[in-house]
Formats: sequence, C-alpha cells, structure tokens
Amino acid sequence: MYDGAMAELIEQLGRLPGIGPKSAQRIAFHILDADPDDVARLVDAVREAKARITFCSVCGRATETDPCRICGDPRRDQTIICVVEESRDVIAIERTREFRGVYHVLGGAISPIDGIGPNDLRIAELMRRLADNTVGEVIIATDPNLEGEATATYLSRMLADLGVTVSRLASGLPVGGDLEFADEVTLGRAFAGRRSVT
Amino acid sequence: MYDGAMAELIEQLGRLPGIGPKSAQRIAFHILDADPDDVARLVDAVREAKARITFCSVCGRATETDPCRICGDPRRDQTIICVVEESRDVIAIERTREFRGVYHVLGGAISPIDGIGPNDLRIAELMRRLADNTVGEVIIATDPNLEGEATATYLSRMLADLGVTVSRLASGLPVGGDLEFADEVTLGRAFAGRRSVT
Repeated sequence: MYDGAMAELIEQLGRLPGIGPKSAQRIAFHILDADPDDVARLVDAVREAKARITFCSVCGRATETDPCRICGDPRRDQTIICVVEESRDVIAIERTREFRGVYHVLGGAISPIDGIGPNDLRIAELMRRLADNTVGEVIIATDPNLEGEATATYLSRMLADLGVTVSRLASGLPVGGDLEFADEVTLGRAFAGRRSVT
Repeated sequence: MYDGAMAELIEQLGRLPGIGPKSAQRIAFHILDADPDDVARLVDAVREAKARITFCSVCGRATETDPCRICGDPRRDQTIICVVEESRDVIAIERTREFRGVYHVLGGAISPIDGIGPNDLRIAELMRRLADNTVGEVIIATDPNLEGEATATYLSRMLADLGVTVSRLASGLPVGGDLEFADEVTLGRAFAGRRSVT
C-alpha cells in the first residue's frame, strides 16, 4: 500500500517495543510532516545514545562513563548492593532517594519460557563483587512477578552461605491505592507482611 | 536522573505522537540493547523517508514520485475526486478497493480551536482542479467528527454552484459491531440514513 521509503519507515518503527502497525503509521506521517531540524535531532539522539552509552563494568547498568556515576561516587555506601533486573530499575529506585548504597544489574530475570537461565544473568559478576567480603548486605529488588520471584529465590540460595545479610523488598498494598481494588495476591502479601504498630 | 545522551534520546522519542515518558524510556532502553545494524536500519529509514518523500503536486498526498502513483495512473477515473483530510486516509480508502477515482488531500480539517481555517487547507488547489469542468463528482470523505463535518459543510457550500455532483460518505453502524454498543450519535445517523430494502 505504501511506497518504498514509507513502507520501510513504518516497518522499522513497528519493530520498536509497544509500537503497533497503527502507531508506526502515525509516527511515520508525523516524521514526514515534522520540521527537518526536529527529525535531525531525533536521528542524532538515537545515534549518539547508541555510540556513547555503554555498560558499567562494575554494576552493569547503562552509562556514558565507566564506572558509572553511582559506582564512582565516594559518598555511596559500597557495602550495600541492591540487585535489580534492568538499568531502568536503578532509575526508579534512585527517584525514591531512600537508597545510598550501590547497584548490581542482572540484565533480566530467570524465565524458562523465554529460555533465560541463571547463566544468562550477571550472577557470576555479583559473586565476584562479594568475594572480598567487604559487602555486608545484598537487597534483592527483582520485580514482584513470577520471574522476579524465581530469580530472588535462586539468588538467596546462592548467597545463603556467604555470611552476608540478604533482604528482599517488601510486598504489600501500593501507597495511595484502594484496598478494595487490590488483587488477592497483593492483599495476601500485605497480611503476611503486616507489622506491629504498637 | 539520566545521563546526557540517554536523557536526550528519551526527550526526542517523547516528542513523537502517542509516545509518553514511559514508552520513550522503554524504547530508549530497547535501542541501547538492540543490534547496532537494526538501529542503523531505523536511522536510515527515518532519513530516507524524510529525504525522498515529497507531496504530490496534484493531490497533495505523501509520495516518492510526482505525480503520485494514483494521480499518474491512466486507469484511474480522473472525473471523480475523493476529498480526504490526510494522506493516511488515502491508504485506508485504497484498502477497500471500492474507489477507482483520484484523491485530493486537504492537509487537515477546519478547527477554530486549533486555529485552522479554510485558508490553511488545500481548498484553493481543489477549486483549481475543478476549474476546467472535467470533474463530474466530488466525494467528501472527511472524518465523521466535529472538525470533519465542519469541513464537509464548508466544502459543499463552496462546490454548490459549480455544477458538480457533491456526495458525502455514509454514516451509520460499523460493520461487525453490536448495535447495543453503538453510541447514540452513530445510532441516530444510522436511523436518519436508513435505506429501503424492498
């Protein structure tokens, strides 16, 4: 239906995550109508990011410097490592301003359906960071879903005999939500994890 | 929160239509993880489309050739012009294989709220196409919403004294839908436009 260059653009846009054929078509027409300078900025941003962003050799997160800003920050507590699945999880936790330790990015979660096993994750790198016994606590902050739980369980077994404190982020009711709308698993977790307030 | 190149990439992606901050972040991380060849293909597709696609000097739709494939096709009936708002509407109508005439793309619809008046649309170009009296029918196929209706009304007035047949696409129940889920305006239109079947 579309001519060559347009068909190719829609095809390539449609390969991006969360972009279906309709969105790809909409974005393609937007690009055609857009100011050439704006399009050049988009193209440059993609190329620059791809060229300049690498992965931190310590924690494994996406960064422009190696080590990344967090691993290289002397004010961060290097004795507490928070283990997350993806670089974007680091950003989410940094936004809370609750955590002053450092991170370790696994690069995913154990998922037999997707063929991702422990050896596909940066677990060996985590064990190496723990080898000199300077780390006192590992906080497992994988996603609260099936894959994340499986990964947390696997990690906690791996870390059990290292003499390091291993903790897991609390599950429970999201703040600002309505109890009546909570799903039963979350509500069950909230009960199981209830804390004394007296 | 993000470093320079990543922040810039998320910013530029977030300017695309239908891409919010979360989607922009997701796509940005996808681009970081993607094969460099795939990213190069995306960048090339954007640049190629921007460089090669122009607008047909006859109908105004996005095209790589001028006149476009449809305007330049001798098998198309040049005496029937279907007026649409955008190039993408041409594609939608072509998919039906119901129409063998040619098109005229207005480049939008009359919308006082967005500051778009008749002079911002390719209406003068349409009048020029009708000047030599070779066109017998104009089908107005603007969107069935407030702006599209206003544009259709304006156009039908402009075309009233030209001795050309002016028609409007039928409004009614969408095929394959449930009557009970139709909104009242659509259902009202379906009644008003009911046809005798005996």
